[in-house]
Amino acid sequence: MTAILPLPPGSTLGILGGGQLGRMLAQAAAKLGFDVAILERETDAPAGRVAAHAIIGAYDDPLALNALAELADVVTFEFENVPAASVEALMALGVEVAPGPLALAVAQDRVDEKSFLNARGVATVAFAAADSPETAVAAAAAVGTPCLMKTRREGYDGKGQTWVEHAADAAKAFESLGARPVILEAAADFVRELSIIAARGRDGAIAVYPLAENHHEKGVLRRSVAPAEVSASAAEQAERIAARILTGLDYVGVIGIELFELKDGSLLVNEIAPRVHNTGHWTQDGCEVDQFEQHIRAVAGWPLGPTAARAQVEMLNLLGDEAAGWATYAAQPETRVHLYGKREAKPGRKMGHVNRILGSL
Amino acid sequence: MTAILPLPPGSTLGILGGGQLGRMLAQAAAKLGFDVAILERETDAPAGRVAAHAIIGAYDDPLALNALAELADVVTFEFENVPAASVEALMALGVEVAPGPLALAVAQDRVDEKSFLNARGVATVAFAAADSPETAVAAAAAVGTPCLMKTRREGYDGKGQTWVEHAADAAKAFESLGARPVILEAAADFVRELSIIAARGRDGAIAVYPLAENHHEKGVLRRSVAPAEVSASAAEQAERIAARILTGLDYVGVIGIELFELKDGSLLVNEIAPRVHNTGHWTQDGCEVDQFEQHIRAVAGWPLGPTAARAQVEMLNLLGDEAAGWATYAAQPETRVHLYGKREAKPGRKMGHVNRILGSL
Repeated sequence: MTAILPLPPGSTLGILGGGQLGRMLAQAAAKLGFDVAILERETDAPAGRVAAHAIIGAYDDPLALNALAELADVVTFEFENVPAASVEALMALGVEVAPGPLALAVAQDRVDEKSFLNARGVATVAFAAADSPETAVAAAAAVGTPCLMKTRREGYDGKGQTWVEHAADAAKAFESLGARPVILEAAADFVRELSIIAARGRDGAIAVYPLAENHHEKGVLRRSVAPAEVSASAAEQAERIAARILTGLDYVGVIGIELFELKDGSLLVNEIAPRVHNTGHWTQDGCEVDQFEQHIRAVAGWPLGPTAARAQVEMLNLLGDEAAGWATYAAQPETRVHLYGKREAKPGRKMGHVNRILGSL
Repeated sequence: MTAILPLPPGSTLGILGGGQLGRMLAQAAAKLGFDVAILERETDAPAGRVAAHAIIGAYDDPLALNALAELADVVTFEFENVPAASVEALMALGVEVAPGPLALAVAQDRVDEKSFLNARGVATVAFAAADSPETAVAAAAAVGTPCLMKTRREGYDGKGQTWVEHAADAAKAFESLGARPVILEAAADFVRELSIIAARGRDGAIAVYPLAENHHEKGVLRRSVAPAEVSASAAEQAERIAARILTGLDYVGVIGIELFELKDGSLLVNEIAPRVHNTGHWTQDGCEVDQFEQHIRAVAGWPLGPTAARAQVEMLNLLGDEAAGWATYAAQPETRVHLYGKREAKPGRKMGHVNRILGSL
């Protein structure tokens, strides 16, 4: 089927991915009157349990993709590693997929991503690609050490990356990451990590949320505070960066852009995520329209909603057993509890988050 | 099974009723990490489409109730006309049902309801019961005309009621309502209709939201504005009324209490609804914890959340074809859209609502 846009309430919206982002997207879509069809790899996933339809299958399973296309006029996703062939298959079946293939391709390869950013006038750390132990050593020497080696594709939450202290160590590091194509990134001498959640509608309209200040541990987000205390210059830079990226990718939907703030106040882009983003969870309790509804609005061709903050919020991720503290959080009047319905509290697994209202704005 | 309280996230919570109130309750429960099982009479109902489990059956079908009890530790409902036998059956199966049988019994019979209120020192209009044409005429004469004749049981949104202009007309009116037991209510000389949404936890704690001012047309709510502009005395009266009712019913959950404000500033209770209430929809965008999450918290044995308003909100019901105006509302930055996923826009049917933010508080 071919989608009528803006997608009217009562239509079915498809989401690839059954995790917490898919769950919160599904809830936002239902609030706007949509039915939701989730394609997820396993039964009993968090998103499928709040959706009208759950299709179980691999993300590149033609039968599963066909079933999704039968139900859904518009399809989006909760994760960036959607196979390009799956997107092509859906589009060939007349489905609108948003964000589109260009955004996915750029976000799936760290070298392509940084090359795209630099070509659009968006600064990043210095970087170099390598695909052998020898080129890895040369690349490390070129960007300077210590530097961070990451696989070009896949990897998230600190997985698939390692520090290289001396250029000569790069060969061993290359092997330790599976001898796959890698990127070597110069260390950023940043004073803090920020992020901006932005959205672009099908009409090209852009809306940005206030910046968040983020704190990671072992590569995993622990805490965000938003709106972050930033200079007017930082806010302007971030908005300009977001606009360049969104326009450059002819983007539709919400994007998460991770930033490094340097001593001199300038911002570098660390990475982009073509989806709703953990550092945007504060918008659920800090803004009138949160990132999940905003994403649904954008992909459904609805007008974007307002992005001003009405409260300053501290978002804390609940990892593994931390979710067992739900009763404590539930008893705090200033704390909003968001739990994902995951069955097993594996160590480090994102089980939920809380948004603490620090003050209204 | 017997419920462990407070009910931990990951548990399944049951809801009788598949309409919009069940849908919004299901979404609130999922946000707190619960799975939801809906018992609804028809497939493809609004609530079942956002829940982990949908059981299709009559509300007094033993098989359906058994299936629900197999899944759910705690059961609540979206409508007051739950058969008493169904509640007994669930309780006999070890299920915690909240609100409890007393609240349902009182709310299901308009005479019992007003008698309960008066016995608790809560004022209502004068009323009299009748169960024949003759007693109807006598009752109309006793309460004075014009008066409002309603069936004692069932009836909502203005259905099952008629005005009686002269006592002699009461016999015909009695027949027109199906010759069922009725109540005759004196006309209230009210200046406006208010309501208060209140909650009581399993620990006996009470929380009340600010009052709403409501506007009905043909017995159907069209518009609420909350917090309403009221005197301190009106707010105090309403809170006292709510506390008396909640405590008197040993209530657990959210209750909606419709009030008449008289010229002298005193409040009468028009009716009570032992459930989340249309006049509380403003809390979704006006309060940190809305009536739906509050109800789930209460029935699950969690602590109640805060009830202060952060914004003044105008809630407009979208009836029938009015929901076709979704695109207009979606384009208004101050308007939040809530649509129920109903398939058919029958005239007068509640298809959704919008909350307009009038100003932050």
